Amino acid sequence: MRRTFEDFRAGDHYDLGTAVIDEAEMLAFARRFDPQPFHVDPEAAAETPFGGIIASGWFTMAVFMRLYVDAVLVGSTSQGSPGLSELRWLLPVRAGDVLTGRLTVLAATPSPTRPGRGTVVLRGELLRAGTPVMSSTFRGLFGRRDDARG
Amino acid sequence: MRRTFEDFRAGDHYDLGTAVIDEAEMLAFARRFDPQPFHVDPEAAAETPFGGIIASGWFTMAVFMRLYVDAVLVGSTSQGSPGLSELRWLLPVRAGDVLTGRLTVLAATPSPTRPGRGTVVLRGELLRAGTPVMSSTFRGLFGRRDDARG
Repeated sequence: MRRTFEDFRAGDHYDLGTAVIDEAEMLAFARRFDPQPFHVDPEAAAETPFGGIIASGWFTMAVFMRLYVDAVLVGSTSQGSPGLSELRWLLPVRAGDVLTGRLTVLAATPSPTRPGRGTVVLRGELLRAGTPVMSSTFRGLFGRRDDARG
Repeated sequence: MRRTFEDFRAGDHYDLGTAVIDEAEMLAFARRFDPQPFHVDPEAAAETPFGGIIASGWFTMAVFMRLYVDAVLVGSTSQGSPGLSELRWLLPVRAGDVLTGRLTVLAATPSPTRPGRGTVVLRGELLRAGTPVMSSTFRGLFGRRDDARG
């Protein structure tokens, strides 16, 4: 059955599964979108406080997004997101890291103006060996069951 | 001269230049990281409130990041970012959109614990024909002049 606004209840948890940070993809992403020395240049990165290349935080977020799409959004009534209220990069992420995604529903509120949808406030995390490396609080818009087509 | 923490003063503005949303790249990004129907499937997207394919908000953010790196971070003492306190996707972004980046310094605070660096709070925006389509308030860590190497 299609996942709709009604399926999100405050306190719900989702296991989003696991992703491995691929070095070639991490570097290609950084060269195109975030070519700072500590993301693209091994020698320059070794001289920084990071001690070597770390992933662009936007690559890490994109990896999280894919886990979230595959585990939760696929086949849902998702209508996108107006934005997020917090994003924290807690620890450097590096090639080969095995990251696990976790999602918690913080709130679910029907739209006061658009009866066909509601806003879900979610907390997303990526963890490495149980320790969060990134966390975010963001909003998702979802169609309601009565309105769900398909 | 290398841009350091001292070069950021509250109220400063930076013009980050312009990027054009490339359809093939936008779609490739979405297929890999955010394969929701309204980002990857023209026919399904036409049935949504968006009326057609729109860019993943993470692609839009990545495009902003590249403008920011090229205009401000390149050759600076940037030491990365601990995160952001707000990100808003205000209007859908589509292939062919011409987006202009703008950056405003909101605050600059020396680190109380690490004398060699400071935190700069920045507001970044992407505009289409003068109207913001995305905005974000984020933090950047920068080395101080005394400490700047190279």
